[in-house]
Amino acid sequence: MNFVDIIMKKKAGFPLSDEEIRLFAEGAATGSVPDYQLSALLMAICFQGMDMRETTTLTMSMMHSGDVVDLSGIDGICVDKHSTGGVGDTTTLVLAPLAAACGAHVAKLSGRGLGHTGGTLDKLESIPGCSVDISEENFIRQVQEIGCAVIGQTKNLCPADKALYALRDVTGTVGCVPLIASSIVSKKLASGAGAIVLDVKTGTGALMKTLEDSVKLAEAMVGIGQYAGKPIFALVTGMDQPLGTHVGNALEVKEAIDILSGRINGDLLEVSLELGARMLIAGGQAENVGDGKAQMMEALRSGAGLRKLAEMIQAQGGNPAVCEDISLLPQAPVILPVPAPVSGYVTRMDTTAIGYCTQHMGAGRAQKTDIIDPAVGLVMQVRLGDYVEAGQPIAMLHLRNEQQAAPAIEAMQQAVEIGDKKPKKLPLVYAFVSANSIIYADGYGKVR
Amino acid sequence: MNFVDIIMKKKAGFPLSDEEIRLFAEGAATGSVPDYQLSALLMAICFQGMDMRETTTLTMSMMHSGDVVDLSGIDGICVDKHSTGGVGDTTTLVLAPLAAACGAHVAKLSGRGLGHTGGTLDKLESIPGCSVDISEENFIRQVQEIGCAVIGQTKNLCPADKALYALRDVTGTVGCVPLIASSIVSKKLASGAGAIVLDVKTGTGALMKTLEDSVKLAEAMVGIGQYAGKPIFALVTGMDQPLGTHVGNALEVKEAIDILSGRINGDLLEVSLELGARMLIAGGQAENVGDGKAQMMEALRSGAGLRKLAEMIQAQGGNPAVCEDISLLPQAPVILPVPAPVSGYVTRMDTTAIGYCTQHMGAGRAQKTDIIDPAVGLVMQVRLGDYVEAGQPIAMLHLRNEQQAAPAIEAMQQAVEIGDKKPKKLPLVYAFVSANSIIYADGYGKVR
Repeated sequence: MNFVDIIMKKKAGFPLSDEEIRLFAEGAATGSVPDYQLSALLMAICFQGMDMRETTTLTMSMMHSGDVVDLSGIDGICVDKHSTGGVGDTTTLVLAPLAAACGAHVAKLSGRGLGHTGGTLDKLESIPGCSVDISEENFIRQVQEIGCAVIGQTKNLCPADKALYALRDVTGTVGCVPLIASSIVSKKLASGAGAIVLDVKTGTGALMKTLEDSVKLAEAMVGIGQYAGKPIFALVTGMDQPLGTHVGNALEVKEAIDILSGRINGDLLEVSLELGARMLIAGGQAENVGDGKAQMMEALRSGAGLRKLAEMIQAQGGNPAVCEDISLLPQAPVILPVPAPVSGYVTRMDTTAIGYCTQHMGAGRAQKTDIIDPAVGLVMQVRLGDYVEAGQPIAMLHLRNEQQAAPAIEAMQQAVEIGDKKPKKLPLVYAFVSANSIIYADGYGKVR
Repeated sequence: MNFVDIIMKKKAGFPLSDEEIRLFAEGAATGSVPDYQLSALLMAICFQGMDMRETTTLTMSMMHSGDVVDLSGIDGICVDKHSTGGVGDTTTLVLAPLAAACGAHVAKLSGRGLGHTGGTLDKLESIPGCSVDISEENFIRQVQEIGCAVIGQTKNLCPADKALYALRDVTGTVGCVPLIASSIVSKKLASGAGAIVLDVKTGTGALMKTLEDSVKLAEAMVGIGQYAGKPIFALVTGMDQPLGTHVGNALEVKEAIDILSGRINGDLLEVSLELGARMLIAGGQAENVGDGKAQMMEALRSGAGLRKLAEMIQAQGGNPAVCEDISLLPQAPVILPVPAPVSGYVTRMDTTAIGYCTQHMGAGRAQKTDIIDPAVGLVMQVRLGDYVEAGQPIAMLHLRNEQQAAPAIEAMQQAVEIGDKKPKKLPLVYAFVSANSIIYADGYGKVR
């Protein structure tokens, strides 16, 4: 088969055969198809799309292009959760211990932060001693014994996705539903999950800025699950402001501990319960969402969730005492307020800009090789719809030094819009997408 | 400027700035932009197109990416002619001597055949001794003294086009009007032409199969001329059957000599006169098409055209006696008929298939490095609308050996369709496109 014929077929709008898609994925993984042909096909896919059969075949081909983790040694169904990436979004550190305390097995291979979003691995590594480099054997034993583990990729997972992802980044072909969906799901399937709950973010801090696009992405990923015979569910949740109030690695660990200690609640806990309840249903521990949430709230109230987090940290070499004494986490030497430039209501936040603001402070990476500063970040002092007086802090900056202050203050004052009219309250959960239906938060459902 | 931003801009349908297009052409010429980004942009251009300003900027950027031939040493306006590629289409060898005999200066840098179409350089080289490797100095002297010269590229012309052309071929991005138009016109402008007459083929043997697409391509190229301040005219002519009856290198030289000797006429002469008349107008030798055609017919009748061809062959090292004795041209050892499989009217010819049939015999190249056989080819015995009896020859094959016969006979019987109903006669010239108007052969014109 001539690869240029495959490109021209897609360019003309025809669906590719399974064999053609496998050639594409293998060509990317092995380098047998040159990059210039891969990128031409990627661009043609951006314009002509892929149907569910094609998207699933691409997903499975990328999954099988490298190692596949075998979690069959763990009792029951291993459930995984994946977020498309948010700001102040540390749901994993809240829901994994809570779900484990309810009997779920959460075996999570996680990623590092890149761009404006944080990564769970970086957050865990901000805990003194805590490691994410665990052997597969120890990883499986930890999930079996404690119920949860979060580690980095140890094996050669999805080399086809690695090659295509790197190419998409430099050829303007990132924003394309079948390519995003197959990239995410292939990695999750290769990491051995038996069921997956997806958190598809929508809004100013999300990859998908509109609800329509977010729902499309959710539908594509759930659809792959149907074709592949793996239960995949998706929540579409808001990312029009940081989910938690804390943005930065150690700061987000602190917020997760504060939540699990019952000291604070809010949107981060709400979304963690929504996602966690679906994980418990998928894992067979809960009957419905109400039951799942109630079990998790009981684990929170009893302290079982916090104890699970401590056990997980200890198993991964970290100091579990951080769960009792958050001052053991790295602390930034300079803490300064961002004053509101005018009085009024917080009408809009450019959440991506807030993410980049902390990245520039050192909390995130512009390049994969950048070294991050675990202590820096910020704590939001306002949420959308709040009224602030001029001069009142809209956020507290946690900085390495005072030189970082001026650009961060300017960026934050730009990112947080203050106006005269109190804005309409936005939903936290917009939609739930499962194999058969999309249920929107406004009560309107449709059959898929 | 980040090249990925340029790709995304075009992907979203925005026109690129002149600076961005120059970066694209320079990146292709120098290799500073990697192939995978070039091919992604080429594919985005296929979907989103380019306006006339963009197409012209790309053309000029490719033209200036390498050497530009200086023909200012030649008196008057050098006129060039370019065909988008046909089968049995040797208009250059008919019209260049006739136009030169009428006082025109035809300085032609020509190409080699690739795929199903022939190339003028290969045809000239089938003449014993004739060379197309002439120094620029001798080329200019020959045009000045004789009035016409046809040589290969001596300099590094349009390296940006060379790189993009090679990439388009392997990335499914060949069929795109602004890319085709800029590729053709950049090479013509770099070869120093003062005015250009284009022969845009349409039909089963053409790059553009439909009249609509062919007119679009003609309009794009004429439009570049307007922007660039160079007179460019285009005829859209039929390629639903081989233009002449002879297909193959020495066979096409023989047909040109037969025409210039007054022994035969037909569509090849007709189209040569139409194109040549426009060249004489552009060069200032004729007042209108009627005048131009009359001058060329007089040059044919008097033998001045044939003498010019002999002079040109002699100046390029070849044996001019071929013009008097065509048996001095290479001859194929085996000549066999292709019998009509049934009786009926010739209703359709797959002209591309006829081209490939002669390519497989050795008359053309599948790869740039293939060596061609100058003697082989075929002579059509029928034209569209002719009635044939079963068994009567539809073509005579000129073969290197008898083993070539069976596949060639089968291919030709497939390529020439015979049916019950006499088909409607197709026009030879469909349209004439100039700066201000498109005139269709059916008398309908429109202002551009």
